[in-house]
This record gives sequence, structure tokens and C-alpha cells, in this order.
Amino acid sequence: MTTASEANATHDAVQTELRQRLARVLNPRCIAVVGDKQVRNYSWLKSLKPFTGSLYSVQVDEREIPGIEELGIKNFPALADIPEPIDFVVCAAPRTVTPHIVRDCIAVGAGGIALFTSGFSEHGDDQGKQLEHELIQLARDARLPLIGPNCMGLHIPRLGVCFSTDQPVQAGGDIAFISQSGTHGLNFSLGAALHGLYCSTLVSFGNGAVLEAADYLDYFADDDTTAVIGMYIEGVRDGPRFARVLRDVARRKPVVVWKGGQTEVGKRATLSHTASLTTNSRVWNALVKQAGAIPVDSLDEMLDVVKALRRPRPTTGRRIALAAMTGGQSVVIADDFAKAGFEIPLFSAASSARLREFVNVIGGSAENPLDLVNTVLYDATAVRRVLDILNEDPKIDAIAFEVSAYIMHGRWARDPALLEELLDTVAAFNRASTKTFAVIIYPGHVEAKAADVRDALQQRGVATYPTFARAATALAKAIAFQAARAES
Amino acid sequence: MTTASEANATHDAVQTELRQRLARVLNPRCIAVVGDKQVRNYSWLKSLKPFTGSLYSVQVDEREIPGIEELGIKNFPALADIPEPIDFVVCAAPRTVTPHIVRDCIAVGAGGIALFTSGFSEHGDDQGKQLEHELIQLARDARLPLIGPNCMGLHIPRLGVCFSTDQPVQAGGDIAFISQSGTHGLNFSLGAALHGLYCSTLVSFGNGAVLEAADYLDYFADDDTTAVIGMYIEGVRDGPRFARVLRDVARRKPVVVWKGGQTEVGKRATLSHTASLTTNSRVWNALVKQAGAIPVDSLDEMLDVVKALRRPRPTTGRRIALAAMTGGQSVVIADDFAKAGFEIPLFSAASSARLREFVNVIGGSAENPLDLVNTVLYDATAVRRVLDILNEDPKIDAIAFEVSAYIMHGRWARDPALLEELLDTVAAFNRASTKTFAVIIYPGHVEAKAADVRDALQQRGVATYPTFARAATALAKAIAFQAARAES
Repeated sequence: MTTASEANATHDAVQTELRQRLARVLNPRCIAVVGDKQVRNYSWLKSLKPFTGSLYSVQVDEREIPGIEELGIKNFPALADIPEPIDFVVCAAPRTVTPHIVRDCIAVGAGGIALFTSGFSEHGDDQGKQLEHELIQLARDARLPLIGPNCMGLHIPRLGVCFSTDQPVQAGGDIAFISQSGTHGLNFSLGAALHGLYCSTLVSFGNGAVLEAADYLDYFADDDTTAVIGMYIEGVRDGPRFARVLRDVARRKPVVVWKGGQTEVGKRATLSHTASLTTNSRVWNALVKQAGAIPVDSLDEMLDVVKALRRPRPTTGRRIALAAMTGGQSVVIADDFAKAGFEIPLFSAASSARLREFVNVIGGSAENPLDLVNTVLYDATAVRRVLDILNEDPKIDAIAFEVSAYIMHGRWARDPALLEELLDTVAAFNRASTKTFAVIIYPGHVEAKAADVRDALQQRGVATYPTFARAATALAKAIAFQAARAES
Repeated sequence: MTTASEANATHDAVQTELRQRLARVLNPRCIAVVGDKQVRNYSWLKSLKPFTGSLYSVQVDEREIPGIEELGIKNFPALADIPEPIDFVVCAAPRTVTPHIVRDCIAVGAGGIALFTSGFSEHGDDQGKQLEHELIQLARDARLPLIGPNCMGLHIPRLGVCFSTDQPVQAGGDIAFISQSGTHGLNFSLGAALHGLYCSTLVSFGNGAVLEAADYLDYFADDDTTAVIGMYIEGVRDGPRFARVLRDVARRKPVVVWKGGQTEVGKRATLSHTASLTTNSRVWNALVKQAGAIPVDSLDEMLDVVKALRRPRPTTGRRIALAAMTGGQSVVIADDFAKAGFEIPLFSAASSARLREFVNVIGGSAENPLDLVNTVLYDATAVRRVLDILNEDPKIDAIAFEVSAYIMHGRWARDPALLEELLDTVAAFNRASTKTFAVIIYPGHVEAKAADVRDALQQRGVATYPTFARAATALAKAIAFQAARAES
């Protein structure tokens, strides 16, 4: 009989070993793709072309090999033929072949494997279930990190590890993303890049037959390249362990959680997607809240909150200064930030007096929320003056500033220097500001121009949002997290 | 003493006369702009250049007149000098001059006036309040339709009446928009045009000192060019009358209502924006609901719901078929439509059997929500086959179909005909379908391409949405309205 402390020690040893094994897979120097083919446009091999290490193909079908070699990638008939240690294997072979490939991985001492192959427990037939069971037994016995099946595997931008040719190759990413959906993982990596944010590591793990969310969470808690963790989860098998790990990790790093299968029919969909038996939504929501993780409800909200955590200077205060460019927008910005739980105090007497010196008070408002009547955007000096006054106001913790591209685009087209000056001014303020700062650019009918302005600002490190409501929700969640962490 | 029926008769006579007077202003053949000037880039006159009737300027400042005449617009020193009956006057003169201009309007028998001029009750000073009081007395005594002050006035696309050079000139618009904010009115007209939807008439009425929302509502109820009415409202002075008119109108046409000033600080903002004393939010929400109007919470939702009312074939049923292109998206589409109150039934046995004949069930799902594994978009015939099966399923009232531009864009770039075929197929199905039908195109990282696809589809009359959640909310509100109307 083992005592509780012996059991804990064993558990810790298992976790430590798993972390070490994952460290190898998630920092690969050699990758092999098994079973890629023409009909899929060799998309695995093409996506992995930017990989900084050695990339090999394993394919026995003679018709497929010339296409692979045309890509400049060396093909071997078996994993055992590859002339160096393999850290990570991508398997795109048919489901019936997968146990053989896992056995080969074990035999050659591969670091780990991700199975793109689907048709296992999520498919619901006996053969699929039996094959998944076989994979689980093989991987567990050999302590082989098996990612999936039914997943897109890894995206590690700094190493050029991609599962889509659209994904960025970029150093310095610090967001780990753990996803039971390849699509959501893909769209997270691509959407984040639009905002100048990149993954440290993205793991798409599908059915999570062997390793599940808690294993990856545990790993990224200790991963120095990871500052924030995002997750799209359909279900967890070991609920108590997940709750324990989430609580531990959320104390150390922000964890943003998006749950798929929140409704009965959503749960039906998760069952055929990843065979996940989802938890009761109320239980789940309580678990996430108690753990101190940050719940979100969509991919866009995930991106918004991650941005709010990474871009603006953090604060624990909820007193916000709001600057809109028209009266109608001043009402909406106030409603949206108030609904998200912000306080919108009147400015200090000193700030009010300073603002009234130059802010157009006929047709506008020099109080919080400010209505700056667009014309302020014609004058970068005035913009900086407004922002500095807000930054210096002791009653204010955060600042939200509208850039009304829907009005200004015509003027900017005639006078591009005006826009450049505005962008430089806003970016300089963002660097100098001691407060949480975000810019809202409603795309309206000038989507392309608004995207340009957004891109220019985020290249300069400014957090931008397309609507007041999205900015308010995201900033409120980031600030609530920061406030809770400051208290604990 | 007058009896109640005499009072009603008087009231009806007043309303009838007002409707007649508004009919003249809102179908102008001659417009005069008073006080436009260089410093504003003559934006009123430039915006009104496309006007199909006669356009004149009134300006006495000698320095301003050459710039006006350069635009090819005849200037007069006074309204009385204009050689034809004036149906509509735009006033951009300083506030102290406005009573004189209103007197001139009355003297020449002008149809009505909109006052862009601000600095009245919303400004809060005594002079502003007194000037507004004077305007009200003058207009009431003369029964002159006075729009505003502090507003952008009219946009009538079919007549080329615009208050921004960005606004469309376009016949056939059938959406009346009544707005206390010029910005929201502008962004409504521009955003709707992106979706092929145009205003019959847009009235931006600011402070609503003389005519308020109920007056415009009453007018558009009887306006044959108007099929749907949208409103952005900050406050109403005569609550009971507004409730009565809204109830009457909402029985005849869908009325979509967005309320500004839902929070305490939002109310503070409406006070300095349009001097509106807003109603308690709970009272307001109950009023809108009881009237059978459709409440929305943002401009984007306003646009979404108006589109849902104008584009898809109407239904009163909530049983929806959902088609996503990946497993992850099948979970989200199910969650989002279920949360919006839709039923997502299993398909009929016949439909299931027909779908299973060709839908990829390994790695996908042939049940509701469908996971069509992207590949279906490579084959327009298969898309049409899926859509026809859903359309013929007696258990289904509505269909939501994803087009995954974030995956397909690369293939479309290599093979543009594939996209064209898909668009033609979807548009042909939309025409043939007997059910509510909408397409969801998530912009993701391919915003420009997604916008192209959206534009192409809406030119062909298809309702498109950027996210499942927005489609679900908008369609649910339209269907609830249609169901309530069918019952009454």
C-alpha cells in the first residue's frame, strides 16, 4: 500500500517527466510528416517548410513521392530510416494505420506525435472507438506524448512550425493557446497576428485522448516564453484535476477560457467533433470563476481579452476617461463602458479647467465622456494635450479614445500627413502614458482605411478595438484579473 | 368646453395637417442652405450637389460668396430673394441668428427647416435655452416643421438629399431612419449601403425641440416608400403619446429601436448631447416590448436586424438548420443559435439519408449542426444539394450557412472561377429557397476577401453576417416580430 504522500510524490514525478517529454516535442529540432499527399496539396509539408530544424517525409506510396521531393523534402519509407532523432511526428495516415505509426514512433524513440487523422471516438463507430483505445494504451505504456487524434497539432511561430501556410513565422510570441478545435486555433493565431500578437506555442489537441487540457496548462505554467494562456475547451475527462491545475496556473499567469458546448445542441456538436462529454455549464462557469481564470464567449472576445492583457499598461482601477468624437458617440461610449462595470467620474476641477481652455464646448462636451467634435483630430497637438490632461488627472485610471475614421477618411485622403501625425502622437502618448490606454476605431463604411489605421497603431504597440462595447468588455476583464491578482 | 371626441378630432386634424406639411419637406423640389462657409469646406452645399431639385445658397458674407458660386450654386442675400417656393431650408448660421432665419422661413412660406446650428438647450446656458424657447414658439405658432436644432437634418437617397458627400444617391430605399444623433444616422446610411440597403428617408433631429420621434414615426407609418423604421432615441418628452404612436405603428411596420442613455452616465451624456431627459431604462424597455417594437443595443445590431427584416424570406418558425465548415465551427454555430432561442432539431430521416450519401462523415457530421469539412465548398453542386435537402426538410424553417473565407481564400486566389460558381449557386438557392436563409462569413485574417464575398452576395440579395452570434441574434429578432404579427 502507498501512502497519500507517496502517491503525491509519484504524481509529481509523473508530471515532471511529462513536462520534460513535452519540452522536447514543443521545441523540436527534427520533424517527420507521415502520409501527406497530393490530394491534400501536401499541405502539411508545405505548412512546415519554414521550420528551422530538419523536416522529413514518410510515405510509401510511389505516386506521392515525386511531388514530395519536388518540394525539396527528403522522403523515407519508414520513420526508422530517418537519419537523426525525431522530436515530433505529424501523422496524416488513415486511421487503421495509426497504431503501427505510433509503434514506430516508440521504436525509434520519437519525442511525440500529433494525429491529424480523424475517425476515432468522435466518429462513434466501434472500429473508431477500438482504434482510439489502442492508441491510448500504446502511448500510455510508452509514456509517449500523443497529441490528438483528430487535431491540427502544433504551431510554434518562432521555430516556423505551422499547420497552415497562412500562419506567421515570428519570434517573440508569448501567448500559449490550447485548443480542441483546429479552426479556432488557426483563427486565433491569424487574428492575433493582425494585432501584432503571436503565440509562444499553439496546441490543437482534438479528442485529447491521451494528453488533455490540464497537461498542456501545467506545461505552459512553467514555460518561460509564455505570458498568457488562452484555451478553447469542449470537455475535460478528469474534472477535479482540471480545476486544481487551472487554479494553480491562474494564480501565476492569466488564463482566458472559451468553452464550446455551452448549450444542449452545442454539446451534441462537441460529441461528434471531439467526443467530448461536456460538463454542466453552471458547474463549468463556477469552476472557471473560482479558479480566477477569465471566461470569454467567442474567438473575437478571446482575441480582445488577450490583447487587453498584453498591450495596455495594467491597472487595478476602474475609473475611466472616455473621449468620443461626436455627441452620439459620447452617449454610446458612456453606455458601453458603464455596462461593463467602469466608473466614469467627472474630471478633477483642474482637468476640467484645462480642457475648457481649448475644447470646443459649443456642440461638444469637455466633461467625461468627452465629445471632441472630430475637429480635434485635425490638430495632433490638441490630441496630445487632451490625452496628457486625462493621464495627469488623479481621478482617472484608464483612457479610451475614439478615432473616427468614418468621418476623417476624406480629410486623411487629401492630407495623409495629418493622419501620420495623429498616429505618431497617439503612439507617443501610449509609450509615455502611465495608465491603461486603448483606441477605438469603428470600421463603419471605411473598413479598409480603418484596418490600415488599426495596423499602423498596433505596429506601434497601441491596443485598438473596433467598437466601444468590445473595448469595454475586454478591458474590464483584464482589469478585474489584475485587481484580483493584486489583492491575493 | 370640448368633449373627448372633439379633442380627438382636433388632435387628428392637427396630425393630418402635420403629415401634409412633413410630406412637403420630406419630398423637396427646392432646397436652400443658409450660412454655409469655407471653414467647413462648404460641406452642406457639396453634400447637396446631387440633389435632383433646385439648390440655392443664402449667404451675406462677401468673402464666402465666391467659393459658393465656384461650386455652381446660386447665392442670394436672403431667402425672400429665391425665385421659387422653398420646400426645405438647412440652417448652418450661428445660434443668435436662427430666430431671424425661422421668421424668414415663415414669411416666405418655406416648407420646413432643419437647424444644424447647436448651442441651445443641450449647451445648458441661459441664452441657449432662451433661443431654443424662441424657436419653439415661432415654429409652433406658424406650424412650421422645424427639425432639430443641433442636427444633420435629412438624407433622402432617391432625391440626392445628403448631409455627407459619402452618402449614397440611390432609388428604391425603403428604410426610414429617425435619429437623435447625426453620427448614428450617417453611419446607419453608410453601413446599410454596404449591404445593399438604402433609406427611404433619414431624419437626424437632434434636440427634437419642436417635432419629436413620435411625429416622424407617425409620418413614416403612412409613407408608402417605407417598409421598415429604425430609430436612435435619447429621450421623449411626451412618453404616453410616444408609447401610443409606437404601438400603432409597430402593428403596421417593423420598428427597430436603439435607445441611447441606458446607464446613468449615458444619461448624463444625452443631456449634454441633445438635452434629453431620458426615461428610466426599465420603463423604456417595457414600453418598447409592449408596443411590439424590436429593441437593439448598438448600431451594428440595428443594421443586422434591419437586414434580417428586409433580406431573407420571412418565417414564423424557429427550427433552424445549421451548416458549418469545420467541427469547431459546428459547436459555435450550435451554441450561438441555441442561445438566441432557436431550435436545432435533428433532420428528418429522409434528409439524413440523402445527406449521408455524399457528405463526408469521417471528420465531419451529416447531422444538425452540419460539419461539412470545407471541402464541400470546392463543389458548387454539392453545396446546392445540401441546401436543397435542408430546404425540403419539413422539420426546418430556416437555414444558416457558413462560407469559410479564412480557409478557402488561398484556393479562391488560385481558382477564382470556383468562388464565382459558389456565389452564383448560393444566390440561386437564395432566390429559389422557400425558407429564411442567411450566410455567415467570418472576416478573420482575410477581411478584404471576406468583404468582397459579402459584397458579391448582397449585390445578389443574400443576407450575410460576420459572425454566427450576430446572425443568430438578428434572425431571432426578425422571426419573433414576424411570429407576433402572424398571431395578431
